[in-house]
Amino acid sequence: MSSVTGAESLVRSLVACGVDTCFTNPGTSEMHFVAALDRVDGMRCVLALFEGVATGAADGYARMTSRPASTLLHLGPGLANGLASLHNAHRALSPIVNIVGEHGTYHRQHDPPLHADIEGLARVYSSWIKTVESPADTGPAAAAAVAAALVPPGRISTLILPADAAWSESSSHVAGPMPVAGRAKADEARVRDAAACLRKPNAALILNGPMLRTAPLETCGRIAAATGAELLAPTQVPRVERGAGRVFVDRIPYVIDAALKRLQHLEHVVIVNARQPVAFFAYPGKPSLMLPPTCEVLTLADPAEDGIDAIERLADVLGAAGHQPVRESLAFPQLPTGAISLPGIAAVIAALLPEGAIVIDESITSGRALMPTTRTSAPHDWLTNPGGAIGTGLPLAVGAAVACPDRKVVCLESDGSGMYTLQGLWTMAREGLDVVTVLFNNRTYEILKGEFKYVGAGEAGSKARDMLEIGRPNLDWVSLAKGQGVPATRVETLDALARDLRVALAENGPRLIEVMI
Amino acid sequence: MSSVTGAESLVRSLVACGVDTCFTNPGTSEMHFVAALDRVDGMRCVLALFEGVATGAADGYARMTSRPASTLLHLGPGLANGLASLHNAHRALSPIVNIVGEHGTYHRQHDPPLHADIEGLARVYSSWIKTVESPADTGPAAAAAVAAALVPPGRISTLILPADAAWSESSSHVAGPMPVAGRAKADEARVRDAAACLRKPNAALILNGPMLRTAPLETCGRIAAATGAELLAPTQVPRVERGAGRVFVDRIPYVIDAALKRLQHLEHVVIVNARQPVAFFAYPGKPSLMLPPTCEVLTLADPAEDGIDAIERLADVLGAAGHQPVRESLAFPQLPTGAISLPGIAAVIAALLPEGAIVIDESITSGRALMPTTRTSAPHDWLTNPGGAIGTGLPLAVGAAVACPDRKVVCLESDGSGMYTLQGLWTMAREGLDVVTVLFNNRTYEILKGEFKYVGAGEAGSKARDMLEIGRPNLDWVSLAKGQGVPATRVETLDALARDLRVALAENGPRLIEVMI
Repeated sequence: MSSVTGAESLVRSLVACGVDTCFTNPGTSEMHFVAALDRVDGMRCVLALFEGVATGAADGYARMTSRPASTLLHLGPGLANGLASLHNAHRALSPIVNIVGEHGTYHRQHDPPLHADIEGLARVYSSWIKTVESPADTGPAAAAAVAAALVPPGRISTLILPADAAWSESSSHVAGPMPVAGRAKADEARVRDAAACLRKPNAALILNGPMLRTAPLETCGRIAAATGAELLAPTQVPRVERGAGRVFVDRIPYVIDAALKRLQHLEHVVIVNARQPVAFFAYPGKPSLMLPPTCEVLTLADPAEDGIDAIERLADVLGAAGHQPVRESLAFPQLPTGAISLPGIAAVIAALLPEGAIVIDESITSGRALMPTTRTSAPHDWLTNPGGAIGTGLPLAVGAAVACPDRKVVCLESDGSGMYTLQGLWTMAREGLDVVTVLFNNRTYEILKGEFKYVGAGEAGSKARDMLEIGRPNLDWVSLAKGQGVPATRVETLDALARDLRVALAENGPRLIEVMI
Repeated sequence: MSSVTGAESLVRSLVACGVDTCFTNPGTSEMHFVAALDRVDGMRCVLALFEGVATGAADGYARMTSRPASTLLHLGPGLANGLASLHNAHRALSPIVNIVGEHGTYHRQHDPPLHADIEGLARVYSSWIKTVESPADTGPAAAAAVAAALVPPGRISTLILPADAAWSESSSHVAGPMPVAGRAKADEARVRDAAACLRKPNAALILNGPMLRTAPLETCGRIAAATGAELLAPTQVPRVERGAGRVFVDRIPYVIDAALKRLQHLEHVVIVNARQPVAFFAYPGKPSLMLPPTCEVLTLADPAEDGIDAIERLADVLGAAGHQPVRESLAFPQLPTGAISLPGIAAVIAALLPEGAIVIDESITSGRALMPTTRTSAPHDWLTNPGGAIGTGLPLAVGAAVACPDRKVVCLESDGSGMYTLQGLWTMAREGLDVVTVLFNNRTYEILKGEFKYVGAGEAGSKARDMLEIGRPNLDWVSLAKGQGVPATRVETLDALARDLRVALAENGPRLIEVMI
């Protein structure tokens, strides 16, 4: 067996363990990983110009494939730049394997300028962390990192690779996949209790994670038909399969008063792969938990357990097999014309959304009409932001498009949110990704104007308003896209939106349409 | 005494303790801080569209004022987005007071989507961390945070403010400044030993921090004249006052072989407010410490100690008062013409640099000719990146321009580096900051091509080169600037650069000149 570098062992082992995509922004300490790419087949490396794009893309990739991508990040600051997207991935339960370069093992003691406590930075969102100290350890560590990421319900691993462990050679080449324990199954008593719960009036199933795919939603739809229970999902979910032919699951509203109202009649709730609904923020005089205090709440399967098995058994107990789920019938609005309005934008998107589209939704306030209006559009996936860290849309779109090259990605993004990670547009252009970004330009952190009131801060004065308005100067997204190689147009009527969206959907490759609201 | 919110007590106390500037990107949990801005005089709030701009601006502000600005960041992810710039600030020894919003104290237990271990994220770069639990504590905590930031040599404080501590009222209004211990003085023995060291042949002073200002450099210049010792500074320094009329201090080169060669003759070194020179990265077969192993190294004052007092006493012991320091005479190249070249760009900037300019240098490989060529330009300040986390230029320029509204800021930025924090351009436009950004567009991570070789990774293959080239697609910085409200031009000759730079320097407000290399 000839000797290879630790970096090459690492890349070979990642590939052997099924990791074939790396979202990267490398620096000096990662050059041997980069060099290994030309000696190892099977690893696609996708460059990002900012690390939050790389980690957010890994999140989007994992949501669409249920497999981890790796990231390649430069030392502590590179990881730090990726943390906000890792926050979202952690909440989305996305498996990710971060490879973070580190100074040489003998060099760290001298505290060079880029030295930092990488493990300390990794700890907040990683379930598995290891600093590799020798080249022979890189392969086994890679296999362990992948296995740890695949532990249900999906976790983040961070492997820290000192430069000398990467460049030194050893004869240990490739470590293959390690066994990963499956999801634990709910016991009989829980299934029986859940059945009893759902037979009562004013009952609901609250679903998340793997439950929001077509097949388990069918089963839940049968249960709903058999019992009269409602199907609900959290405000922000990693991914839901919806539209025509699918079983509808209602989203709990974001605004606290609307959420409380939506849930106030519930008396019996069964939770599957989800958690109890919690308000996004604390508001004076409002509760944190949004179900009524008297509501019976039973967890059939927590996020790590086997919810699909559990609802199948639940359906059996309930005799739901003979019931037909209510499936959405294909229906969408006529194309509206005239001046831009939020309902009008939603109608255009609902009418034109192609079958199999992957919709990334970071449209915030501008998009509140979108989910209701697209409910019966052609079948599609809808990805939102379970972590709430703003700036997730463009990176998720990158990852979803890399994961699913044969599907159209529609990224619904806002001006304020998009600015956190606008570098994602460049990666779309570089890779020729089939992403249509619809950019809602309302020139304000509109959501914060509502929040300002909800938290009881009164009327915003002029200095406060300055912190909520981003229209001085206006962001010009056509230029921001053009500057990164993405063709873009600006629309100021619904007719123009429909025209440009139709063109963009018909073509292949990245496009941006800026909608002036 | 009437009741006020905890947020208002906090803002009043920051102002009372001398903090009058806040670089911010707020969210829901920070709305009461924002509301307080209209009830409290004396706090300028500067909005950034990305948190790395806010924390990097606070770094630039601190370097120019020696006072902390505050930042206002949204929960864990907001802090996370600011960490890479805090890495650089930590290395620059810049005092900063971060205010990080947190969920309500009673809300955290429910682990809402944006919940994170904020103290864990803060710990890597903060010397002082406190989560305030009640509104009466916000004022005293603010005063303690400011005092902790001012502990020599300058530190980062992070005050975590739960939403209910911000919105609840108490009668405790304002906490004033707390005493801060001064810098410790070197004892007599150290001064005598340093004098003996510098009287020997092949001696040098290595200077950093407060030593790199005009007055202490004069004293060091007298010592150099009296002893023949060289004056040296680290490769990356927070700020150096240089140019005509100032005493020259030579920069240790970045490239490891050049640095080792530059230092190889040294036998006796005295360090003042600096640390032993360490290689930026580990390279196979090269040492980590860059002074010759046989070199005598004596620390007269560590970065927290009183270096200015120490070198004045050192000058006395050496009888340096009667010696004249060598001051640079004003001289700059004739304006070159013709095709773009790196020496030509440096000559244009050296010729046109206005007196009192604040130069922010993140020009990386494109700018290696800049410091030698501007050595005798009109007197100016030069700020570089002691932390090495890329993406520092535009944020530092924002902070320096806010700190020094009467001075011209010249930001020398690269395409690769600039993309990490390009949102800084928007804040320049929003605030009308007097910053001329010269953007070097070479369409590559050029430095990594060198590093690839230095770390012994051989010749880059096609997949590796893909990770080092960023010219597919080309970044178009004129569009990226225009998209954020900053007027911009592109130049492809030295004549055009000179013309556009002259115009930009003569006007007030932000401008960007993209130089195609």
